Amino acid sequence: MDTELGVVLVSGGLDSCVTAAIARQDHELAFLHVNYGQRTEAKELRAFHSIADRYGVTQRLTANISYLKMIGGSSLVDPALAVETGPSSSQGVPSTYVPFRNAHLLAIAVSWAEVIGAGSIFIGAVEQDSAGYPDCRPSFFDTFSRLVREGTKPETRITIETPVINLRKKEIVTLGTTLHAPLHLTWSCYRDSELACGRCSSCLLRLKGFRDAGIADPIPYAVPV
Amino acid sequence: MDTELGVVLVSGGLDSCVTAAIARQDHELAFLHVNYGQRTEAKELRAFHSIADRYGVTQRLTANISYLKMIGGSSLVDPALAVETGPSSSQGVPSTYVPFRNAHLLAIAVSWAEVIGAGSIFIGAVEQDSAGYPDCRPSFFDTFSRLVREGTKPETRITIETPVINLRKKEIVTLGTTLHAPLHLTWSCYRDSELACGRCSSCLLRLKGFRDAGIADPIPYAVPV
Repeated sequence: MDTELGVVLVSGGLDSCVTAAIARQDHELAFLHVNYGQRTEAKELRAFHSIADRYGVTQRLTANISYLKMIGGSSLVDPALAVETGPSSSQGVPSTYVPFRNAHLLAIAVSWAEVIGAGSIFIGAVEQDSAGYPDCRPSFFDTFSRLVREGTKPETRITIETPVINLRKKEIVTLGTTLHAPLHLTWSCYRDSELACGRCSSCLLRLKGFRDAGIADPIPYAVPV
Repeated sequence: MDTELGVVLVSGGLDSCVTAAIARQDHELAFLHVNYGQRTEAKELRAFHSIADRYGVTQRLTANISYLKMIGGSSLVDPALAVETGPSSSQGVPSTYVPFRNAHLLAIAVSWAEVIGAGSIFIGAVEQDSAGYPDCRPSFFDTFSRLVREGTKPETRITIETPVINLRKKEIVTLGTTLHAPLHLTWSCYRDSELACGRCSSCLLRLKGFRDAGIADPIPYAVPV
């Protein structure tokens, strides 16, 4: 196959699903899912495999970095810390920040990409909707790209692609719909319930994105939204 | 305690043991060990705890990143690839290179350091004796330091310390002996045998270091050395 191989970090959420839809336009896909002991891992893993099935992706890697749960420091992995309800604060770093998380995700993606010969890594990081996550900024990914050049074999060429980093949720929803991304298979909620709660900051952000885009969110919620 | 807390990456080998001896001169210590599915993990973990016991280190974290074994690509973790016998080649990247390994080790150290409030991370990387490992060069660690500034909370200050990076093995042995580092507790061999093999590139490098330093290696070997 002449198409370049690209590793896509697929959490199972909306942003990474749309990122995969973008990547597949001109890449053969390999899907990487990272389990870091977050509350909603089972839901996210199911979404990961559903999206991979939909796109016929056979190269899949699931990496467990549950040591992040041992390290703690985030309400996403530490039961002692409460998940904030309502919109993300625009001030400071939210409690859902997992210390340096994207460095772990990218390091795994780089190691895998180097071994399977992928030339690109796609990550669905979003700066504007992730206010306060220091490892979601373009400058973080730029520095990581330099690190990849420094820390891999001389012949290795791997670029870090963040195709949705400058988009708002509304634009991601619109783009995903245009690309026929399987948004109905995604999971965004921070709580581990049967249905998405519709109340946590992640649900509210997602719902606002669909509303602003004028598109109905295809997933069911536990409460009227 | 007024002494700053420092996270030391302790593999159980010679270089990290001497690095710990350096760090403890002016830091309270927290020890981090990373298991990445390498052949000799049991030996290394035993060495890690022995060194931690010797130094009275109570904050210990063992992180499992065995996904590196799934990823493969290195003779250290992939049984299908042979470990080279004899001195490391000065040309190219050796088969024992684990793709981008030090990025994983440092990412874990940074997450832990941010949560426990450590201001320094010590890693026993050695450039000259690790010819061909791209992630052992000072430029890699400099770039990683920039990444830490970009990817952690604004108030977080963590420096990456590589106190033995410019030393030769002979100098590391001499320094460790001067600092009374427990070198007899370390494990360097790439093979998983009862005693160190004395034949792999890591054993040969270690033995030459002791010989050049004029100091007897305190560990037993399977063959006369």
